Amino acid sequence: MSFSFRVLKKSKDTSARLGEIQTPHGIIQTPVFMPVGTVGTVKATTPRDLKELGAQIILGNTYHLYLRPGHELIKKLGGLHRFVGWDGPMLTDSGGYQVFSLGREDRQIPKETPHPKERGLFRKTKLAKISDEGVTFQSHIDGSTHFLSPEKSIEIQEALGADIIMAFDDCTAYPTTHDQTFISLNRTLDWERRSLACKKREDQSLFAIVQGGFFEDLRKKSVEEILAMEKEKFFGGIALGGLSVGEPIEKMYEMASFTANLLPIDRPRYLMGVGMPADLVTCIDLGMDMFDCVIPTRNARNGMLFTKRGPIQIKQVQYAEDPRPVEEGCTCYTCCNFSRAYLRHLHMAKEILSSILSTIHNLHYYLNLLGEIRLSIQENQFLDFKKHFFELQKEEETPC
Amino acid sequence: MSFSFRVLKKSKDTSARLGEIQTPHGIIQTPVFMPVGTVGTVKATTPRDLKELGAQIILGNTYHLYLRPGHELIKKLGGLHRFVGWDGPMLTDSGGYQVFSLGREDRQIPKETPHPKERGLFRKTKLAKISDEGVTFQSHIDGSTHFLSPEKSIEIQEALGADIIMAFDDCTAYPTTHDQTFISLNRTLDWERRSLACKKREDQSLFAIVQGGFFEDLRKKSVEEILAMEKEKFFGGIALGGLSVGEPIEKMYEMASFTANLLPIDRPRYLMGVGMPADLVTCIDLGMDMFDCVIPTRNARNGMLFTKRGPIQIKQVQYAEDPRPVEEGCTCYTCCNFSRAYLRHLHMAKEILSSILSTIHNLHYYLNLLGEIRLSIQENQFLDFKKHFFELQKEEETPC
Repeated sequence: MSFSFRVLKKSKDTSARLGEIQTPHGIIQTPVFMPVGTVGTVKATTPRDLKELGAQIILGNTYHLYLRPGHELIKKLGGLHRFVGWDGPMLTDSGGYQVFSLGREDRQIPKETPHPKERGLFRKTKLAKISDEGVTFQSHIDGSTHFLSPEKSIEIQEALGADIIMAFDDCTAYPTTHDQTFISLNRTLDWERRSLACKKREDQSLFAIVQGGFFEDLRKKSVEEILAMEKEKFFGGIALGGLSVGEPIEKMYEMASFTANLLPIDRPRYLMGVGMPADLVTCIDLGMDMFDCVIPTRNARNGMLFTKRGPIQIKQVQYAEDPRPVEEGCTCYTCCNFSRAYLRHLHMAKEILSSILSTIHNLHYYLNLLGEIRLSIQENQFLDFKKHFFELQKEEETPC
Repeated sequence: MSFSFRVLKKSKDTSARLGEIQTPHGIIQTPVFMPVGTVGTVKATTPRDLKELGAQIILGNTYHLYLRPGHELIKKLGGLHRFVGWDGPMLTDSGGYQVFSLGREDRQIPKETPHPKERGLFRKTKLAKISDEGVTFQSHIDGSTHFLSPEKSIEIQEALGADIIMAFDDCTAYPTTHDQTFISLNRTLDWERRSLACKKREDQSLFAIVQGGFFEDLRKKSVEEILAMEKEKFFGGIALGGLSVGEPIEKMYEMASFTANLLPIDRPRYLMGVGMPADLVTCIDLGMDMFDCVIPTRNARNGMLFTKRGPIQIKQVQYAEDPRPVEEGCTCYTCCNFSRAYLRHLHMAKEILSSILSTIHNLHYYLNLLGEIRLSIQENQFLDFKKHFFELQKEEETPC
C-alpha cells in the first residue's frame, strides 16, 4: 500500500512524537507544518522556493479550486500536482470549513451579540444554507449558487488528486450551545460515514475530522463513532476540527489536549488551521503531528515577520535604517541578502518583492522551527527545546 | 580605469555592433537590455532570479529613490547595490524624465488637444515647474515640494552609487514646436555641462543625453555641443532621449537612425525607454547598444506574455484549458513548469504568483532575444536573424 504511518520515536515526559507518513508523492516527516496553497498557489511563492525552504507537503482548498478554475479542468490537465507544478505530497481540505466561514461572515447581526443561541445560528445566512443532505452556498466570486455534500466534496477531491483528502464536516463556531453542537456533530458523523463510503481512489488517504465544539462528551462521542465506522475502509489519519474559531487560546489547548488523549496512537493527528508558533510548540507537546495555517504567508504580506524573539512589524519606523537582517543567523534567502531597512522600504512602497521576501522568511521560520522540533524529539530534548523557545519569546532585542 | 568600452565586432551591411562595457561591478556585453528597477526592485522578481535570467545590468530611478526611501539612507546603508542585494552593474537615470512626466500627466487639458503650442506647454503644471536653474516639483506620494537640478541629480546619483549615471536633462513631448524644442535643448545642454562639471566620483561613468525632439538640426546641434563640452572630463556613453514620447513609431526610427549616424563610434549608445521587441531589433540594426523599458515587467503584470510569434493576452478564454507552456521550447522556469491554463488561472485569481511567473517569462524573452542578437552579430548573421524575427512575428500559432 502506498500509505503508511509509523511513529519513529515517542518523547519521554511529553506526548510529542516523531513520525513518518508515506504517500504516493513522498515521505512526510512529522511533526509537520503544511503551507496553505488556497487557490493552487502558496501565495507569493514558487514551487521551487517551497522545495528549497523544505516544505514537505502543501495544501489546496477544495472550495476555492472547485469555484475557480474548477476541479474538472484540473483533472483534465493531469490533476492538482501537475497543474500547480508541485511533485511532493499534497492535501486538500473538504470545503466544509470555507462554507462554514461563508455562513458566518455575512450575517447581518452584531458580531458581539451576547446570546449564545443567536451565535449558534450564525451559519444560517444567505451565503450558505445547511441541511442534512449538504450545504447550498453562493460563490464569493460571482454569487452563483452551488451545492456541496460529502459525495460532492469527495468527487472534487478525487478529481484534484491530492495524496491526503478530508472528510466533509460541519464546523461549529465559538460559543455554540451543547444542543446545537450535538445536532451539528451528528450531521458531521453522518457526513463522515458518507465520505468514507463514497471514496473510490486507493491512491488517496481519507482523514476523519473530530468535531464536538468545546464539550468533552461530544468530542469523546466524535472519536468513538469515527473509529466505529471503520469497517472495510479506514481513515488514514484523524484531524481535530472546530478549534481556533474564536475561543480563548487556553480553551483551544484544553480541548486539543483532551481530544489527543482519546486518539489511537497509530494514526497521524492533524490540528486544522493552527496557528502561531507558540501554538505549534504547545500542541506538539500534546501529541499533535500535523498543522496548517495561513498565518506565516498572510502575515508576511501584512508586514509581520517572525523571529525567535517573537514577531516584528516591519513597517515600524525603528526599522527604517536598520541594516540587520530580520533575524541574525537566519539562513533564509531573505536574511542572507536583505536588511530590515530594505524590507521596510519594499513594504511601504507596496512592492510585490515585499510579499515574496517576507513569505520566504516566514515560511523558513515555520519550517525550520518544525525541523528543530523533530530533532529535539529525536534527541529526547523536546521539553528543553520548548522551555528555551518560550524563554526566547520573552526576550527583548538589543536596539540597533 | 575601471570603465572602458570596446566594439568587438561591427556587423556587415548594417550598423549593428557587438561591444563590451567594463564597469566596477562587471562586464556588460552589448547590445544589452536593462530591466528597470524603479523603486529599488525589478518588480516581482528577486535578484537571484535576475541573475539566473542572465540580466547583466539593472536600472534604478533617481526620482523614485530620492523620494523613498531617500538617497542619504541608501548611502548610509552602503549604496544602492548593497541595499537592493544586486552585485552586478547598475545604472541610475537622472530624474529628468520622471519630472517631465509629472509635468505632463496632471495638466487639466484634453489629452488629444490638437494645437502644437498647447502641447508644448504640457510641462507647465502644478506638479512640476521648470526654470533654467532646475525643476520644482511635488511628490506623487505625499505632495511635498522638492527641487531637482543637475547638481542635485548628480549628488543623489553619487550617493546611490550606480556604475553608470545620467546627466540631468529636459525632455520634450511630441509634438513640440521648433522654438520650444530649441529653448528646451539649450537648457538641456547647460544642464549637461553642469552635470559633467559637478561630477566627483571616479568609479561612476556619466552618460550624456542627446535631445532635440524631432528636428534634425537640433539633434545635430545636441550631439556637437555634447562632444564639444568634453575637456577635462568625458562622457562614458551617449544616450538618446526624447524618443518614445507619443510619436508614430516610424518617426522614432527615423530620428534614432539620423542621430545614430552622428554619434562617435567609441561610446556606447543608449536608446532610453525603448521598447517593444521589434523596436529593439530595429534599433540595434541602426547601431544602438543599450536599451531599458518597463514593457516586459509591466506588461507581465497585466497578463501580456511575449512569444516569438508576438505577444499573447493570457486572460483570453482560448487559454483556459491550454496545457502548453507560454512558448514551446522556451527554457525559462515558467515555461518548463507551468501551462497557459495555470497562468491564466493565476491571472484571473489575481495571485501574486501570476506576476512572478509572467515577469520571469517576459524578462527571459527579452534577455534571450538580446543574447541571440549578440550571437548573430558575432556570426555575421544579424540581417538574417532580423528577417527571420519579423517573419515569425507574423505567423499564426496552431490552435491547441
